[in-house]
Amino acid sequence: MDLRDGQTQPILDPNQPTHVYHLALDIGGSLAKIVYFTKDDDRLVDVEEGLSHRKALEKSNGSKQYPVLNGRLNFKKFETSKINDCLDFIKSMKLHIGGRQPQENPGSQPIVKATGGGAYKYADLFKERLGIILDKEDEMDCLVAGANFLLEVVHQEAFTYMGDQKQFVQIDKNDLYPYLLVNIGSGVGMIKVEGEGKFERVSGTSIGGGTFWGLGKLLTKCKSFDELLELSYRGNNRAVDMLVGDIYGGMDYAKIGLSSTAIASSFGKAISDNKEREDYKPEDIARSLLRMISNNIGQISYLNALRFGLKRIFFGGFFIRKHPFTMDTLSVAVNFWSKGEAQAMFLRHEGFLGAVGSFMSSDKHGLKELLANQVAQRSPRKLSFAVDKILHSLPDGEFNGDESIECSVYAA
Amino acid sequence: MDLRDGQTQPILDPNQPTHVYHLALDIGGSLAKIVYFTKDDDRLVDVEEGLSHRKALEKSNGSKQYPVLNGRLNFKKFETSKINDCLDFIKSMKLHIGGRQPQENPGSQPIVKATGGGAYKYADLFKERLGIILDKEDEMDCLVAGANFLLEVVHQEAFTYMGDQKQFVQIDKNDLYPYLLVNIGSGVGMIKVEGEGKFERVSGTSIGGGTFWGLGKLLTKCKSFDELLELSYRGNNRAVDMLVGDIYGGMDYAKIGLSSTAIASSFGKAISDNKEREDYKPEDIARSLLRMISNNIGQISYLNALRFGLKRIFFGGFFIRKHPFTMDTLSVAVNFWSKGEAQAMFLRHEGFLGAVGSFMSSDKHGLKELLANQVAQRSPRKLSFAVDKILHSLPDGEFNGDESIECSVYAA
Repeated sequence: MDLRDGQTQPILDPNQPTHVYHLALDIGGSLAKIVYFTKDDDRLVDVEEGLSHRKALEKSNGSKQYPVLNGRLNFKKFETSKINDCLDFIKSMKLHIGGRQPQENPGSQPIVKATGGGAYKYADLFKERLGIILDKEDEMDCLVAGANFLLEVVHQEAFTYMGDQKQFVQIDKNDLYPYLLVNIGSGVGMIKVEGEGKFERVSGTSIGGGTFWGLGKLLTKCKSFDELLELSYRGNNRAVDMLVGDIYGGMDYAKIGLSSTAIASSFGKAISDNKEREDYKPEDIARSLLRMISNNIGQISYLNALRFGLKRIFFGGFFIRKHPFTMDTLSVAVNFWSKGEAQAMFLRHEGFLGAVGSFMSSDKHGLKELLANQVAQRSPRKLSFAVDKILHSLPDGEFNGDESIECSVYAA
Repeated sequence: MDLRDGQTQPILDPNQPTHVYHLALDIGGSLAKIVYFTKDDDRLVDVEEGLSHRKALEKSNGSKQYPVLNGRLNFKKFETSKINDCLDFIKSMKLHIGGRQPQENPGSQPIVKATGGGAYKYADLFKERLGIILDKEDEMDCLVAGANFLLEVVHQEAFTYMGDQKQFVQIDKNDLYPYLLVNIGSGVGMIKVEGEGKFERVSGTSIGGGTFWGLGKLLTKCKSFDELLELSYRGNNRAVDMLVGDIYGGMDYAKIGLSSTAIASSFGKAISDNKEREDYKPEDIARSLLRMISNNIGQISYLNALRFGLKRIFFGGFFIRKHPFTMDTLSVAVNFWSKGEAQAMFLRHEGFLGAVGSFMSSDKHGLKELLANQVAQRSPRKLSFAVDKILHSLPDGEFNGDESIECSVYAA
């Protein structure tokens, strides 16, 4: 399709049996994340927007012919323990078969890109229930590809958070690398990223989101990760943590720069008297857990950033969930341990790095093919995403992982 | 006293009202440790042993006059929450007044060296109940002085532990520094030690012994730290931890060198089904806690050793308690993260570093004075400890922190 003449032609003929892989998966230990592309209703194509994108591309490419698809990248998550909910959703939306009727293409098995351990664990289930083949992509490859894509392409993707202040940071693509990517899922992976496809997993810790949720579930009556996070927001960790002041009779340990309110021992106060678990408020326990885990991740991240001389640390993964207190604790930890030299940064689509990377890896078979077929020209070599708008499905601050990005895909 | 002629003269006249400060304290957040020197019954002075020590000293000092005290350094611990037990013990043993009757010296207040936060917190209590002044010594100074003393003087103080193999390491004093001292108390302190009195606290973590005990107390029915440790010995962490194989359907994540049995997420399995806390075995929870905390300490220790180019990491503090599994986990963690380049080492008197350091700091007022008065010569400048034998109060392997070292003190 060429928008130069301002026509709003149909991008995709719904009766054409082309294979389109709009869908990609990232199935982790706790959460299954999906990303899928849906094209806009053709009547909604915004010619002006399309034109402005085209102009930007013309400028950078020096070319004037671009197939384009306007639509949305959609993000959705499910609990891995309820993986059937994920399969039900895919089935009901017909995402695995490009939104078409299953009988239209009975002869072949759709292939869907997937990453994370669940791509292995649930491969048979997806085949049996949906008749699709999961094409496995490496987890680290996807994480890094997803982070790089989001950081390079999406406006207002990266931000800092400290003292209740959220500040978007415009990343210059030429100044992005090298950085430390810390992905906080059930466990935590730390990856030194030096460029596209150039990275190394340098460290990690088993004390991650699964620890928060697992210990939290054992210690409180919470039924979900989000409930536990919500609870932590109202708690006070001083009720269960042993502070420097608790040991020093209310005083600082000034000589080594530890204030009386610094945590000397996480959960250390739970030993000092005859209280039982029931005597502690669940919100205080949740808060203490969150601080313990966030602090620890911040510290180990900083030590690894230091080791490799990386000034920027990007935190991703679903543990964060845009939770102000989590981000603040991670930021403070990085700031404290680095004495202000390193900075914690966050990603708007933190939980979907792997899924986006998996989605990007499907370029060669999915959107490119679609574009190529639709405009009846040779298969494009490269796709460009122009991101138009980030659309929330919930009011700001109540992001639950379901979101969409309005975007245009161009092929060169 | 001069042992050259083999006489066994009384070292100390029990009726002489000399101030002797045999006692030193280290009162931490969870445990109060005391070290005190008791002289041997004079008839028990072993002339042969005394002579051999004297000869060694003659050789190194080139001098032939040495006051000497034969006796024992005794180690004992109490729970800080039951600090009155500690005061009762000191009172019953008359440790604070050199074993003499209180009425013998009514006019002055004995001064006792003490370190740790409790030296501040409980100063008034010691004054009120025992009439003694706690002379506060800095916690880090004492830790380092204690570790240096034990490593330099005590034979078979340091050892490695891996795969059920305990191996004593003879440390050459000239090759001891620099090293990383990791003291695992309620919290964890990490100190770069470059020599006597030359050190810097470089890091630490709030996830320490207090966390193990605190979380363990909340999650199991254990009544003490030792009971929890004991319990952990029988448990299997796989019941509560999410392993790499749990995420990857039993497979390794070979690309990044993670085996299927590696812990991906500590306590991560506690989220994945509808089990309650009661459905998990307390021993499995205890084991998982121990692995989580030991692993984390090992990892952060290694990262700091790496940062400062320190090949040896000595672990001290009462968290370890000669517990084979704890030592093994710390060793494996250091070995894993350092790819075999750094080595975890342990100290036989791990829990008493601060107390020994506090004791050593009392040299100028205590043993030296005693020696000086007893032998009626000028005050000695320096004390040397010759350690004769380590005596257990319990059969090997059931060390509970009460122990004594048979030793001779020489003044030069």
